[in-house]
Amino acid sequence: MSISYRMVTKKLHFTDGNGNPLKEKEIHVKQTNHSFLFGCGAFDFLAYLHRKDEEFKTLTDYWLDLFNYGTLPFYWGNFEPEEGHPQTDKLMEAAKYLKERNVAVKGHPLCWHTVCADWLMKYDNETILKKQLERIDREVTGFKGVIDMWDVINEVVIMPIFDKYDNAITRICKEKGRVALIKEVFDKAHECNPDAVLLLNDFNTSINYEILIDGCLNAGVPISAIGIQSHQHQGYWGKEKLDEVLDRFSSFGLPIHFTENTLISGDIMPAHIVDLNDWQVDEWPSSPEGEERQAKEIEEMYRTLFEHPLVQAITTWDFRDGAWLNAPSGFVRKDNTLKPSYHMLRKLIREEWWTDTTVKTDSEGEAVVEAFKGDYCFESDGLSGKAGLSDNDPMEIRIV
Amino acid sequence: MSISYRMVTKKLHFTDGNGNPLKEKEIHVKQTNHSFLFGCGAFDFLAYLHRKDEEFKTLTDYWLDLFNYGTLPFYWGNFEPEEGHPQTDKLMEAAKYLKERNVAVKGHPLCWHTVCADWLMKYDNETILKKQLERIDREVTGFKGVIDMWDVINEVVIMPIFDKYDNAITRICKEKGRVALIKEVFDKAHECNPDAVLLLNDFNTSINYEILIDGCLNAGVPISAIGIQSHQHQGYWGKEKLDEVLDRFSSFGLPIHFTENTLISGDIMPAHIVDLNDWQVDEWPSSPEGEERQAKEIEEMYRTLFEHPLVQAITTWDFRDGAWLNAPSGFVRKDNTLKPSYHMLRKLIREEWWTDTTVKTDSEGEAVVEAFKGDYCFESDGLSGKAGLSDNDPMEIRIV
Repeated sequence: MSISYRMVTKKLHFTDGNGNPLKEKEIHVKQTNHSFLFGCGAFDFLAYLHRKDEEFKTLTDYWLDLFNYGTLPFYWGNFEPEEGHPQTDKLMEAAKYLKERNVAVKGHPLCWHTVCADWLMKYDNETILKKQLERIDREVTGFKGVIDMWDVINEVVIMPIFDKYDNAITRICKEKGRVALIKEVFDKAHECNPDAVLLLNDFNTSINYEILIDGCLNAGVPISAIGIQSHQHQGYWGKEKLDEVLDRFSSFGLPIHFTENTLISGDIMPAHIVDLNDWQVDEWPSSPEGEERQAKEIEEMYRTLFEHPLVQAITTWDFRDGAWLNAPSGFVRKDNTLKPSYHMLRKLIREEWWTDTTVKTDSEGEAVVEAFKGDYCFESDGLSGKAGLSDNDPMEIRIV
Repeated sequence: MSISYRMVTKKLHFTDGNGNPLKEKEIHVKQTNHSFLFGCGAFDFLAYLHRKDEEFKTLTDYWLDLFNYGTLPFYWGNFEPEEGHPQTDKLMEAAKYLKERNVAVKGHPLCWHTVCADWLMKYDNETILKKQLERIDREVTGFKGVIDMWDVINEVVIMPIFDKYDNAITRICKEKGRVALIKEVFDKAHECNPDAVLLLNDFNTSINYEILIDGCLNAGVPISAIGIQSHQHQGYWGKEKLDEVLDRFSSFGLPIHFTENTLISGDIMPAHIVDLNDWQVDEWPSSPEGEERQAKEIEEMYRTLFEHPLVQAITTWDFRDGAWLNAPSGFVRKDNTLKPSYHMLRKLIREEWWTDTTVKTDSEGEAVVEAFKGDYCFESDGLSGKAGLSDNDPMEIRIV
């Protein structure tokens, strides 16, 4: 595979404000955004917007300089710790802040057995499901237009057999079965925002997840994209496993999002740990060798995913070291200095896979542009026009 | 759990040919069949009916003395080795022979990637599917009334990733996906015989199979019963695993059939063998200790399954040692002598779980009968009546 799928070769017809061709003019073709979603956890924005201190300002600027896509946390237990008092305003502020800066936002997740609201457990199963669907309605309808992408339900393969602690969602999943619960929550989300991108998301990349997706699709669940987690605290999957996972999950023909990617720049978590959450350490340092390794793995992984035509998004989970599990999992160290992985990814996203070029129109005002799919600004003689380039069809661009 | 679920406590009103009550009469209540399906592979009947020699006559008599349910082979590659020349007559003869002897017959299987017809591989996938559905129509329609129970599709968990050799069914399963293929073949079988009992059957008892069933049911696949294989060449599962499997698969509320049970009376196959077919031996002797062990395991397993209200059938795969894999897996040795497992199972089916009793009617001609669910003959003074007992509702029995 190559990355030709990510590009357009397009005849553009440049005109002035009166529709006359701009003949034999130099046009500066400047990309302003990628069609591909280069994402990261945007949890830190909540702290930034809340506290506005310099530490978070720096982090936020680094973040915005790299990503066009952010995941915001909607864990029910944190979002609505007390029934009837959701943190809607706080999340709306963060979502709007990102949207205004050209960043697509995804809410994560609407239904999950972990970080679930404990107060749900006092209700019977019928009421729990009712409240789950009402919750989906509230968030999906309430954030429509600001957040139009949701991890609807998370980790369903394990959901009905999760036995670390009692919780309301495992109870209803056990009673209804996986596919029926998935169908309920997806149907509700789809009803509330028919244009939303709705994801099923799981860390299980085995045949279990394949069969689950297969069942959901045959049961008419409106899944927009398959979400694959890839927390690699126990070591990089490597290209072979990555290709194998892509091969298996692309059989559905649906877009694939790598929703939660982690590659660390320190010691690897021992292989015998089954639930990553069981590895709790006070210190998990980043090392120079680890940082070089992380940058190489980031490069190989992003290249592999960017080359695959069905992949539409890659989200690295932690932006700064020391977030989930205290791992050295970020692009930025704890002291806010940039790691090699940051520079590597910036080189890919903003240089190698980024179009900034000049073309000269012919006597008809036309020029062929080869460019990465995305949004563009076209400048000539101090005037400009904007357009999104997504296919090879000819297009008129008005420079005014 | 107890076996009360397998019994009725029923008030019977006995009358004579004119409808007058049979007052204060002794009635002999003789069970003639079980509602529960005690089954065995009936492949040997084909040889018996074909060759009619004494060896098979003995075997057949032993078989018929124990079982009320038999599985006949419909492997496409053997059933129709040359396209257009199916062995319909041979199978019909065997099926009718069993049916006339009060034995329910199941056909196994209508769709499977193993023992598949090689001639299918010359066709494209669309044609393969068309021929698969025509094949289902031919068998299900053609045998209707004689065979009304089918293993519709076999081992789908592994079907699209089966890579031992190329075959037509893996090809179409890979292209269509598991659930869509299951739906096609079940819909066709159901259309051809709406009253048939249609099974999905697998040796995979993991979460994979659970999720597959879940998906099928949500996609509207008309599954009548869940088929579970339990070939235990590598050692008896034990009661704990048996209970665990029953617990997981009973969550669907569907009847459960143990479709292919094997417990052996010799050395255990090494645990490192993944595909049982990879274990090919010239000799696999039955031993006295092995035979005692097999009988104990048969007892525990049949008791456990008979106690579970959703289990409706248990089929032991091989009747005689030396069949599949040359294993000592039968109730009968290679020299046609009966093993302890035969006597054990006969004791359970024909003694402990069998009703043969005498009741005395009261002054109204009534008597309460406690009996195992099944078919009965009621005898009094040289006259008799027949009825099936399946619930606790009062019933009139005419003795003529």
